[in-house]
Amino acid sequence: MSGGMIEGNAVIGQSGGPTAVINQSLVGIIEGLRGAGAGQAGSPIKKILGMRHGVRGLTQDQLVDLSSIEQAKLARIAATPSAALGSTRDKPDADYCKRIFTACEKHGIRYFFYIGGNDSSDTCRIVNELADTAGYELRCFHVPKTVDNDLPVNDHTPGYPSAARFVANAFRADSLDNASIPGIKINVVMGRHAGFLTAASALARNGEGTGPHLIYLPEITFDTERFVQQVSEVYDRYGRCQIAVSEGIQDEESQPIATQIFSGETDAHGNVQLSGTGALGDALSLILKQKLTPAGGKAPRVRADTFGYLQRCWPDQSPVDADEALRVGRYAAMCASSGDVDGSVAILRAGRGYAGEDYRSELDRIELTEVAAKTKHLPEEFMNGTADVSQAFIDYATPLVGELPRFEGF
Amino acid sequence: MSGGMIEGNAVIGQSGGPTAVINQSLVGIIEGLRGAGAGQAGSPIKKILGMRHGVRGLTQDQLVDLSSIEQAKLARIAATPSAALGSTRDKPDADYCKRIFTACEKHGIRYFFYIGGNDSSDTCRIVNELADTAGYELRCFHVPKTVDNDLPVNDHTPGYPSAARFVANAFRADSLDNASIPGIKINVVMGRHAGFLTAASALARNGEGTGPHLIYLPEITFDTERFVQQVSEVYDRYGRCQIAVSEGIQDEESQPIATQIFSGETDAHGNVQLSGTGALGDALSLILKQKLTPAGGKAPRVRADTFGYLQRCWPDQSPVDADEALRVGRYAAMCASSGDVDGSVAILRAGRGYAGEDYRSELDRIELTEVAAKTKHLPEEFMNGTADVSQAFIDYATPLVGELPRFEGF
Repeated sequence: MSGGMIEGNAVIGQSGGPTAVINQSLVGIIEGLRGAGAGQAGSPIKKILGMRHGVRGLTQDQLVDLSSIEQAKLARIAATPSAALGSTRDKPDADYCKRIFTACEKHGIRYFFYIGGNDSSDTCRIVNELADTAGYELRCFHVPKTVDNDLPVNDHTPGYPSAARFVANAFRADSLDNASIPGIKINVVMGRHAGFLTAASALARNGEGTGPHLIYLPEITFDTERFVQQVSEVYDRYGRCQIAVSEGIQDEESQPIATQIFSGETDAHGNVQLSGTGALGDALSLILKQKLTPAGGKAPRVRADTFGYLQRCWPDQSPVDADEALRVGRYAAMCASSGDVDGSVAILRAGRGYAGEDYRSELDRIELTEVAAKTKHLPEEFMNGTADVSQAFIDYATPLVGELPRFEGF
Repeated sequence: MSGGMIEGNAVIGQSGGPTAVINQSLVGIIEGLRGAGAGQAGSPIKKILGMRHGVRGLTQDQLVDLSSIEQAKLARIAATPSAALGSTRDKPDADYCKRIFTACEKHGIRYFFYIGGNDSSDTCRIVNELADTAGYELRCFHVPKTVDNDLPVNDHTPGYPSAARFVANAFRADSLDNASIPGIKINVVMGRHAGFLTAASALARNGEGTGPHLIYLPEITFDTERFVQQVSEVYDRYGRCQIAVSEGIQDEESQPIATQIFSGETDAHGNVQLSGTGALGDALSLILKQKLTPAGGKAPRVRADTFGYLQRCWPDQSPVDADEALRVGRYAAMCASSGDVDGSVAILRAGRGYAGEDYRSELDRIELTEVAAKTKHLPEEFMNGTADVSQAFIDYATPLVGELPRFEGF
């Protein structure tokens, strides 16, 4: 294969759970390809196509021509949450991948961009390896995206800062609600394996006694007895207790607590359905009501909310997230149009954003094998005891989330 | 009793479920009392006190002096969601009311303001009647507040427009999420008896095929078979279906569907707990999965979110709501300081806000008996068939909610 520019079309797909900024990355890739001359006379990059619902649409010839969409419309799409092209949870096997090649050949595709999380980067790796084996030159780029923030190498991933912003905002407002009519309040937060999003609830705190008072992460074995004890202590102290619980909390055998509660559905990746149900929160409520009711006395007021899909689609992009999601898209397009390389784009932190240092990020091309199907967990130094996060996590997450509304009380 | 100004202190309480703008009304009352001279030399209105957690705090001498809080702080409090003084769900009986009088006499209270919904206005009425019977001159004002929008006389109530704004925003963003990865999505919305908040989901629509596709209100008997049929039709047509369900949907015997699902807790008013649990959404999901799975085939993707307490505390006040919540507070203070009157403040629509007419509201003093413990339902003309709202409702609600973000797609 040559190191120069190969002639053909580009295709862009969006995969996995959408985010508030996934369209920023889509627009970033389009802008990057246009910047590299796509569509202009003499340019090796011809049309810019979009897959409807990811590789599923590609294999079914459901493509949309993005070549000549005007800049004003692109800007509005970038500001729109959820996947504008449609997304998919399909995970291609060898046969599916053959169909992807057939589609690539049929549509003259030589530049392949796939925006997604770790399952999606694995799809990207498989497609790329099959392209290599087939001797088909395909410049294949994964563009990172996941509210779970669980991709390796990356300091953080596009989508996480905006979702974390929603979670922090929600906990800050809900803590006031919980203080208004005191009781025990459980809020269940997304994040199948990694506790980053649940940890972001800690950013809601703004003063002594404000919530969340307890934070339960999937990285720390969930012990029901300890949970009840910890809630009881906070409730005795403040007359109320606001609790952040990850949907992915696990028992000592690494089994999700949620799967013990209901006969869960699994998706194409074998993942159990954790979101889109209130079962975990309701089960934990029931446990607290039962265990914290004094003999002959009245059960405490316990409520549970499961934040659900609003976490990933709420239309309030964090400024850092909007900027970076656009940039990773542009960077992938730049890499792919500059030589015969494949890979993923990683966000590295170049300026800490605390201790007097401005926040700044840099982008780097990494190999697909470095990111594909790997999961990063909340590191040890971001946790504090069994039900809290550390100052190191607060320092890490604060610049990503941006300014939150400041509330006032008596 | 004299028609002039009686000398004494004023007290303000917040009651029932808090809202995003309940502190606007608190600040409005303080500003109104200050405007009437409260605290100034020679003024009959002496101190402005706040009840901690409503009448519960008043009877326990838990009062806070609000007389000299600076204007800048008041402005920040007005912008803060949830009840800054704390709220309560206590409903005073005759004995409780005696304790309220004792507290009023003890603290020299002659001006009594209670911000709340229909349960709270009833509290206000009882306190006022006992004051009359006891020959104790107490100027007693109810200041309306409820996200349920179910107070009679009022065109709408403070708190509703902001909660409706959250619901409309959430449905608009979630409809994009549902279009990204198509399936059936149920969102359960607050509103025990009245469907106004669930109806507001319709404001999310912005084009053919956008959600919500079906809206289930507590005013229309919920028929499970019809529900399954309607969802099936939409799903066949669009390949997806976004559904708004009121937490208060009822069967043909006017029993909440939710109570059939779980052994509900009841509050001091005998109300069954509907919020703070995902049980209703999960039960409806299960029904759809079972009924819509083709013989030998795969169940459709069904998810349910219950929006929960974020609906009433999300920190995004609708401009109309912020303005009116402040004004009803000021108006109550003005009435109470202008003569020996009691009552509630009602919001009346003076400019429609559609059909070429600007939106405008006027305030009116009404009798406590006109509003106390009465519930308004979504009127017939706001409904359309068995699972939708009418254009008349859209016209009614649009000016209240304010501008929503406009999204763009391909």
